[in-house]
Amino acid sequence: MKNSIKDSFSNFLFEYETPRQVIVKNSRIAVVCRIIQLGVLAYIVGWVFMYEKGYQTMDTAIGSVLTKMKGLAYTNITGVARIWDVADYVFPEQGDSSFVVMTNYISTKQTQGKCPEIPDGKNKCNLDADCDEGKYKRHMTGKCVKSTSTCEIYSWCPVEDDRQIPDPPILQAAENYTLFIKNSITFRQFNVVRSNLVESVNQSYINRCLYHPMNDPLCPIFRLGDIVERSGFNFSEIARVGGSIGILIDWDCNLDLSIRYCKPNYEFHGLYGTGKDDKEEKPSLGYNFRYGKYFVEDKVEKRTLMKVFGIRINIIVHGRAGKFDIIPTLMAVGSGVGIFGVATVICDLLLLYLLPKRDYYKNMKFKNTEIQEEKPDLPPSQTEKDQP
Amino acid sequence: MKNSIKDSFSNFLFEYETPRQVIVKNSRIAVVCRIIQLGVLAYIVGWVFMYEKGYQTMDTAIGSVLTKMKGLAYTNITGVARIWDVADYVFPEQGDSSFVVMTNYISTKQTQGKCPEIPDGKNKCNLDADCDEGKYKRHMTGKCVKSTSTCEIYSWCPVEDDRQIPDPPILQAAENYTLFIKNSITFRQFNVVRSNLVESVNQSYINRCLYHPMNDPLCPIFRLGDIVERSGFNFSEIARVGGSIGILIDWDCNLDLSIRYCKPNYEFHGLYGTGKDDKEEKPSLGYNFRYGKYFVEDKVEKRTLMKVFGIRINIIVHGRAGKFDIIPTLMAVGSGVGIFGVATVICDLLLLYLLPKRDYYKNMKFKNTEIQEEKPDLPPSQTEKDQP
Amino acid sequence: MKNSIKDSFSNFLFEYETPRQVIVKNSRIAVVCRIIQLGVLAYIVGWVFMYEKGYQTMDTAIGSVLTKMKGLAYTNITGVARIWDVADYVFPEQGDSSFVVMTNYISTKQTQGKCPEIPDGKNKCNLDADCDEGKYKRHMTGKCVKSTSTCEIYSWCPVEDDRQIPDPPILQAAENYTLFIKNSITFRQFNVVRSNLVESVNQSYINRCLYHPMNDPLCPIFRLGDIVERSGFNFSEIARVGGSIGILIDWDCNLDLSIRYCKPNYEFHGLYGTGKDDKEEKPSLGYNFRYGKYFVEDKVEKRTLMKVFGIRINIIVHGRAGKFDIIPTLMAVGSGVGIFGVATVICDLLLLYLLPKRDYYKNMKFKNTEIQEEKPDLPPSQTEKDQP
Repeated sequence: MKNSIKDSFSNFLFEYETPRQVIVKNSRIAVVCRIIQLGVLAYIVGWVFMYEKGYQTMDTAIGSVLTKMKGLAYTNITGVARIWDVADYVFPEQGDSSFVVMTNYISTKQTQGKCPEIPDGKNKCNLDADCDEGKYKRHMTGKCVKSTSTCEIYSWCPVEDDRQIPDPPILQAAENYTLFIKNSITFRQFNVVRSNLVESVNQSYINRCLYHPMNDPLCPIFRLGDIVERSGFNFSEIARVGGSIGILIDWDCNLDLSIRYCKPNYEFHGLYGTGKDDKEEKPSLGYNFRYGKYFVEDKVEKRTLMKVFGIRINIIVHGRAGKFDIIPTLMAVGSGVGIFGVATVICDLLLLYLLPKRDYYKNMKFKNTEIQEEKPDLPPSQTEKDQP
Repeated sequence: MKNSIKDSFSNFLFEYETPRQVIVKNSRIAVVCRIIQLGVLAYIVGWVFMYEKGYQTMDTAIGSVLTKMKGLAYTNITGVARIWDVADYVFPEQGDSSFVVMTNYISTKQTQGKCPEIPDGKNKCNLDADCDEGKYKRHMTGKCVKSTSTCEIYSWCPVEDDRQIPDPPILQAAENYTLFIKNSITFRQFNVVRSNLVESVNQSYINRCLYHPMNDPLCPIFRLGDIVERSGFNFSEIARVGGSIGILIDWDCNLDLSIRYCKPNYEFHGLYGTGKDDKEEKPSLGYNFRYGKYFVEDKVEKRTLMKVFGIRINIIVHGRAGKFDIIPTLMAVGSGVGIFGVATVICDLLLLYLLPKRDYYKNMKFKNTEIQEEKPDLPPSQTEKDQP
Repeated sequence: MKNSIKDSFSNFLFEYETPRQVIVKNSRIAVVCRIIQLGVLAYIVGWVFMYEKGYQTMDTAIGSVLTKMKGLAYTNITGVARIWDVADYVFPEQGDSSFVVMTNYISTKQTQGKCPEIPDGKNKCNLDADCDEGKYKRHMTGKCVKSTSTCEIYSWCPVEDDRQIPDPPILQAAENYTLFIKNSITFRQFNVVRSNLVESVNQSYINRCLYHPMNDPLCPIFRLGDIVERSGFNFSEIARVGGSIGILIDWDCNLDLSIRYCKPNYEFHGLYGTGKDDKEEKPSLGYNFRYGKYFVEDKVEKRTLMKVFGIRINIIVHGRAGKFDIIPTLMAVGSGVGIFGVATVICDLLLLYLLPKRDYYKNMKFKNTEIQEEKPDLPPSQTEKDQP
């Protein structure tokens, strides 16, 4: 018993099985088959290896973005000159990857109190009885104000009147603001850290450059007007009612080459807003938000309510890097061998079912065992000899 | 020589090898084998192709979210009526995908100066000697204040007293606020841009709808109370001490169908807070933060320190789209052929080791070569003829 | 006809093909071949299954982060004592995953008006004619101010003078601030929710612990000085000019084990700033931003412009979980079988092209069909008999 196991084992170790094959000397089928195999090979080498870089292991980046706006706007509203700098027009202030540049606003100085609603046509009243608490969403005092024919409400007073959006936008000068983007990415798997201030971008270049897709594709300084333009929007229109733009920083790095070739690519996508040629009405266009600047005057808390229309910029980092690795290479080879098997199956189908001499090849390829068991009702004519 | 290479090449081109096979006319083993193969085929077609859509190439979305809260709260604290609008209760103000709705607060008007600590039981003093600088984390003046029996400190004064959280929450009315979400996603690989304001969501529908998972699953307007409810929290409790909720916008798009079927799905997840039936004590529940509203009064800088308890909402976008592509189709087929190989291996094991007539089949399947070399000690009885 | 289809079908069902194979009794080639196969097997079992956990289906986490800073700073500038608490030094205030801790600042109290530019050497003027509107980016009044020899501009006045950054940093005490991180992750596919306050982290532990990579690797409270140190920066330097740090919370969970082993791992990465041993000049180091605290004094809107230098912290959550699943297991097996095929191909090449008796094995392996068709010009000498 022990001996027989030992025998089997030494047989297993010192013998080797290889499939027996028929060499079909038929040039028509052979050429077709070789062409199919060549196609599979071309696919594996060309697509899987060259194009998709199947021999590389991939990693996605972890990115971090800092932004800084620069620029000044000068307004002269009813004789009052005012300068707007970055602390006035960027929200939030700390240079996040997502921020808003104010381009237009409606400003209202308010205190808590009672005042009539804005007469926008929908909320008319004639008598105090029309101003029932609970009828509307606002908190009524129950009085109908004669002068405006609207109900009196508890509110920050006076109520903001946003029926007219300033046109042209107050801070049209925002077109010339510049945006400086610092972006750092980390490919943890490869222990690679990379910044968008690549080798060719030094301090003196930063001081004078402005991003241009052809001439200065690596300059990290962008003119706001250009960003809006490239995302397919109209600056005047988007500055008036607001809009949202995505800046995509795309890194596609082949780490088998020098790290110097790992460079960012900037793309601009319009997310919400009015395009240059948009004529059809889309729901809920534009972008705005309200915020209050609170202060105390004469012991009373007051606020300046700002309805801000602006350009919201979202910076998204998308990073992928690949590097040669033995594992995905073997994987790709393994799956390629699988697909080679498909080529063989197709050729066999041609050989056994389409050729005029298919019966001859069937005889060559297959050897029948005799039927011996539970199913003696099968036609014995199926039994064929190995060699005719 | 040149001729022989030419010969080999023409042989290679015009010949074709196909494996020789035995047809085993044994219905038992054949049925088992066909069942296994059928299982593999069912798996490849059913699972890989139908369910997992292995014939599609996938892309994940890049998303952008805008939010807008609406609603008013009316409070009447010690006779002072006050209206809270969106500029008062949303942080940050600019409609980010992550924001806080204030539902409760402790407000303290402060100036820089010296004042005694809050007597919370842990920081009693009897003598000035108990108030040594460096003993505590706060900056002491070294004086023990008699009236409170606590040390005097340099601080914003008076010190905030947050021992009692207002109950019920001051802004309980937040339950009826509504949240409007605008979400745009981009599948870059397929050049598809899609918004959560899909075809059926037009301006008039937005004006009147409210999200409901059954009746209005596409309405982008959500009642805050519903959001809290659906995430498994208790509104009163979470409004009092604060909490955090995730809203997941899930896009699972099959771009082989019409783009109209690519619709968002909203899910609500409670992240931090007190569930309806939670009785056990978890560490560090609730959510709050402090911020200051700074102002100058009588030439002195002052601030209103707000300890804000609120509902923090995180909107997360998760998008996947698939589209038919020849590459993943071939990949899936290739790997399927590989698994077919496993079926053949299993059948062969049955055939060669379990069947009673296994020796007969072994003879049919295998042909032995004679041992001829360095290992003549192997038993020659192994040599078998090709055909018995 | 119908009968013959029936016959074919019953043949298909009750017959089973298995490849015929040659058993090559050549120990040299057999041992080589077995070693190659063993290598493939070891790779599949060891790498694909054990190391890469190819039998698991993977899911990436959706994470949510809350942060809370604690700590006080005491400054004494020209005799004025001031306490800085969390509402003073954290931006934004609401505990986001990305925030800035102010460590240094330049503060300027401003009103709108006209004032001369800061004489930084680049903008000297001698005559009013030097101060042409449009010559510079700022908005000129056209007057040259004698006392400073610079042009007068419309601006927030006086103009901020940021030529000198305070050294040492004003809020050097920030080193001892602590950061509390709450992180919740969701693996949607497995319906698993997990918090960084794992089982061993209870309220009493949180009250006294401080993160240390060896002793307290799960404590969610971090000293700011330690964070800076571990990210490779110098605290004094980064506190003076600002910098950016990434905290990576890494979850790598094997859900086949108990959920208790699913624990976070904290990593600290310096993103922008000055390292300890950095001597070379890099472009655009440091991190700062400007913001305004607006107030009304004597009916005039004023602001305190703060140029804030600070440490910006980005918390990034990276979560992966794996769980046994039948599909990826079959996938891995299928692709493994494919690679086994490669082993056989290599062995065959050895057998047929390198062995001295290769012609003998060729005869054993291959059977030729006679050439019968369109290409009778092929040498008939190729025809070989099945058995010599």
